[in-house]
Amino acid sequence: MATEDSALQEEILREAMALTSRLDFSKPPPFIAREIYTVVRNICGNSDPFKKIKHRCNELALSLYPDLEKLVDKSPDPLLTSTKIAIAGNIIDFGVNSDLDNNDIHRSIEDAIKTSLPESEMERFRRSASQARKILYIGDNAGEIVFDKLLIKQLLPQRITYAVRGFPIINDATREDAEKAGLSNFVKIIDSGSDIPGTVLDQCSRDFIDCYNEADLVIAKGQGNYETLNDENKQIFFMMKAKCPVVSEDIGYPLGSAVIMGVGIDK
Amino acid sequence: MATEDSALQEEILREAMALTSRLDFSKPPPFIAREIYTVVRNICGNSDPFKKIKHRCNELALSLYPDLEKLVDKSPDPLLTSTKIAIAGNIIDFGVNSDLDNNDIHRSIEDAIKTSLPESEMERFRRSASQARKILYIGDNAGEIVFDKLLIKQLLPQRITYAVRGFPIINDATREDAEKAGLSNFVKIIDSGSDIPGTVLDQCSRDFIDCYNEADLVIAKGQGNYETLNDENKQIFFMMKAKCPVVSEDIGYPLGSAVIMGVGIDK
Repeated sequence: MATEDSALQEEILREAMALTSRLDFSKPPPFIAREIYTVVRNICGNSDPFKKIKHRCNELALSLYPDLEKLVDKSPDPLLTSTKIAIAGNIIDFGVNSDLDNNDIHRSIEDAIKTSLPESEMERFRRSASQARKILYIGDNAGEIVFDKLLIKQLLPQRITYAVRGFPIINDATREDAEKAGLSNFVKIIDSGSDIPGTVLDQCSRDFIDCYNEADLVIAKGQGNYETLNDENKQIFFMMKAKCPVVSEDIGYPLGSAVIMGVGIDK
Repeated sequence: MATEDSALQEEILREAMALTSRLDFSKPPPFIAREIYTVVRNICGNSDPFKKIKHRCNELALSLYPDLEKLVDKSPDPLLTSTKIAIAGNIIDFGVNSDLDNNDIHRSIEDAIKTSLPESEMERFRRSASQARKILYIGDNAGEIVFDKLLIKQLLPQRITYAVRGFPIINDATREDAEKAGLSNFVKIIDSGSDIPGTVLDQCSRDFIDCYNEADLVIAKGQGNYETLNDENKQIFFMMKAKCPVVSEDIGYPLGSAVIMGVGIDK
């Protein structure tokens, strides 16, 4: 997607392989993604190869939004339904599923609403969310960010800061996507200041770190945020689709399932 | 499979990546496989990581052999049936399908017998095979080699030399597998003299090259032989399962289908 010039493609491939051979394997995968996309940018000058795809995902999600909003409003348990949809939205990930189409997303949402979330985790989330004074909601992908809006509306938006990446990286949501999703109209938007497709605190801006420290609840969407925040000593709820076998095994959820998992939360 | 020592695994991974970054991308894939397995051998000293798997595949194929032999003998067209089974046997490829089980193989054979091969190619093969004085049959994988025996029996074995790889490489058949399959009892066995999982003539032994030049028909099993012989100016019938999208597109057969394709053959 970054270039159709096959000589540049070969150069990127060779440089990415050479880089991979020297990587620190103890770092989480989002570091590796950042390194690889830096190679792409340096060699072909394209700093946002997923731009069109991100646009398409936002448009698609926005077209589904009005129906989903009605569905949440009519639901007997709007917090549960919007949580399910926010997690289902994490399937919109062209970094993992490059050939995802509208039908997949429709099916994913329908399945998500029918499938129950682990009740004890959902209860803990309900309690933590009702008690929190300041919530930092860390988004993941373009498109998905539109579905996050449904959950945010159920959480008293004035408490919430929504975080995006500091620079374009893969299909991760940036400020531009937050604008398009209409999120900036009712929550404060912050960016990480970093181009890592996850949240590595010592690489984030001072503002972001302050916001993280002040929050008494963090909601972190997607595998990238899980892979970089899972060892933090903080009240965090991870919400994602378990997309790769390594993460799936680590968290003890079957591959493909909807994950809601609190860490650092009082039982 | 080559080692359970994770430090060695990491060393192999790094060295393989570094090597890949420097590869000549114009060489066919079997060259790359040879380079990678050389890294494995050099780092952990295991020159035959697929040894157990090859043994298991041979045993499995031998257990199926008596029934398949009856099936060929009772068939109205034994040459066609044995050709189908020889091609189906190419599914036994743990280099591609590491989790293949007995049921997959049973199903593959049943499907193969039900599915027709392209008639014009089969007719050309029939004619070429009936006219050939010397046939070089180049095998591919352990296990599969047992199924080749059924086709060889239909081709007047005294004309045939059966070729295996010169050294263990992935799950490719070597002299040891030809012995186990019982092939050495009724055809001459030759090895390529090379550890490439394919047939690169300028890397083969003098004996092999002589045998190749003397043959007026070559039967070449599997993708590795196709990828290395497809540009040769020689009467060759390629027989394989189309296992990867690149080969499938190159030959114009759907992915997963049974391929019989003659090159350099008079129409």
